[in-house]
Amino acid sequence: MSTDPVRTVGDVGEGELIDLFAGPDAIDDTDAGVLIGPGDDAAVLAGGGPVVVSTDALVDGQHFRLDWSTPGQVGAKAIVANAADVMSMGGRVTGFVVSLTCPKDLRVDTLVGLRDGMRSAARRYGAQVVGGDLTTGNQLVIAVTAIGAMDSRSPVRLSTAREGDVLAVSGELGASGAGLDLLLAGVPGFTSLVTAHCEPSPHLSLAAGAASAGVHAMTDVSDGLLSELRTMARQSGHAMHVDPSRVPVVPELAAAAAALHTDPLRWVLGGGEDHELLASFPAGVVPVGWTAIGTVTRRGGGPPVVVTGIDDVDLDLGWRTF
Amino acid sequence: MSTDPVRTVGDVGEGELIDLFAGPDAIDDTDAGVLIGPGDDAAVLAGGGPVVVSTDALVDGQHFRLDWSTPGQVGAKAIVANAADVMSMGGRVTGFVVSLTCPKDLRVDTLVGLRDGMRSAARRYGAQVVGGDLTTGNQLVIAVTAIGAMDSRSPVRLSTAREGDVLAVSGELGASGAGLDLLLAGVPGFTSLVTAHCEPSPHLSLAAGAASAGVHAMTDVSDGLLSELRTMARQSGHAMHVDPSRVPVVPELAAAAAALHTDPLRWVLGGGEDHELLASFPAGVVPVGWTAIGTVTRRGGGPPVVVTGIDDVDLDLGWRTF
Repeated sequence: MSTDPVRTVGDVGEGELIDLFAGPDAIDDTDAGVLIGPGDDAAVLAGGGPVVVSTDALVDGQHFRLDWSTPGQVGAKAIVANAADVMSMGGRVTGFVVSLTCPKDLRVDTLVGLRDGMRSAARRYGAQVVGGDLTTGNQLVIAVTAIGAMDSRSPVRLSTAREGDVLAVSGELGASGAGLDLLLAGVPGFTSLVTAHCEPSPHLSLAAGAASAGVHAMTDVSDGLLSELRTMARQSGHAMHVDPSRVPVVPELAAAAAALHTDPLRWVLGGGEDHELLASFPAGVVPVGWTAIGTVTRRGGGPPVVVTGIDDVDLDLGWRTF
Repeated sequence: MSTDPVRTVGDVGEGELIDLFAGPDAIDDTDAGVLIGPGDDAAVLAGGGPVVVSTDALVDGQHFRLDWSTPGQVGAKAIVANAADVMSMGGRVTGFVVSLTCPKDLRVDTLVGLRDGMRSAARRYGAQVVGGDLTTGNQLVIAVTAIGAMDSRSPVRLSTAREGDVLAVSGELGASGAGLDLLLAGVPGFTSLVTAHCEPSPHLSLAAGAASAGVHAMTDVSDGLLSELRTMARQSGHAMHVDPSRVPVVPELAAAAAALHTDPLRWVLGGGEDHELLASFPAGVVPVGWTAIGTVTRRGGGPPVVVTGIDDVDLDLGWRTF
């Protein structure tokens, strides 16, 4: 079908729009994990032990802007955020479904870009977009649900950090927060930071190795490091100590902080949407690819999160939806 | 916590809102099917063979109006629509996740009503709301994903009707469409029809028996009978014959049609959102509770859908989102 850019969602029929997502090319039929793809009442995926499920929506103007990100980047980000939730449980992603609410003036080529970004990101996690729903509304809302299989593994909770554990992350933090601030300030350049915000590519493949290595607790950094540590502390009853100088950052972070006259620690500790993994390992077993950034100690009467070099930690620092 | 009706989503903190959905009372812990409920990165459900998944969103002003429906009815309808998709595959519903996009001026008690409607409807299908996502936006969007298990059954496609089959439905059709037209026209009364629109309660429990009886094809009537028959005809390559005088209707339908000076057949054939099941059974095996309404024949050169008493069927009659 034509994807003439001047055409909008309101210009084309429902059937044609559905075909964009559920047409004959929607699914790679050689994928044995998809028993039934789009076109029926529901999709059916091959089972594999307990079923992991997570949902996360991106709202136009709230989580992305189409003048900052390409449609493909927005689609990919929606997939990555959901894959991170399944993989940080130690799950293997088996499929995604997508509920899209589209304004009638949304361009059809924007929809196609979103779709292609979702499809290619899903493939990076060994899965496909197997179903969805299209409706019209005032605002573009992309609600993705990721489905995963635990196979014979046990789910990795975020609540089960133990005293004496080593805290570690799977990659650099703060780049997404810096990219957002650069976009908000209209500062040009810093492509790697802006890209980290528009289309994060966290090291989620490290989750499987962490599970094999006996990780005690794991989550992904979606709301900022301090916010995630606070949650781990609250749920485990232990204290989380972190040394920010050990947290890996991309080289551009310092220059961006200088350009914006701010402290890069704000992004490292409070910046959200990096979606890297944060895990609590038994002492001595931090696997290759992970960077140790702190320890888990007995809570006692002290604060839940202790940051080296900062006396009074503002735990409310972090990504806020509301 | 207080649910003072004058408070809005914008008045309360994110933590308090999340507690409304993911607090200690969010899950019945005696339910062995929920291995991990809200509060972690993802929920984990007990597996049971292949995994069924379907997603469907309700958009304020598009699929519901809060001056027509109570929040509880809207929440229940979002669950029912998704349960229907899983159960019409022959699946057993195992859980729901919900992505809610809320305007900041949405009242907290509206949110609580939505939640309670979703929870109690989910229980009717033997499942719970196990996770979700809350974001703000311009318009209330309720995107629900239903997860199901096939256990040892085979999925029931909608494409596999066979020549000689009997078409049957699980309950009355047209009530939801009539209720919508009554609401649009501002005609008072006709409570059963209005309720059928605001909170449908289709006979989805008949799906399991249909699967046991060897049903060939099944779907739920979400877009109107003719629309579903057209889809079954297209996907199977056969012709669908239906006798509208055999389609069960509620007694109020004729009086509502008289009040609105219309033909009730318009609702029976084209009204959407009844969510009753439509199935294609081998001749002679229509189970108790189902009503035979037609047959499946060789397509030949004729139309895909033939309606007794109507020469020229308008297949575009039906619920339209776009």
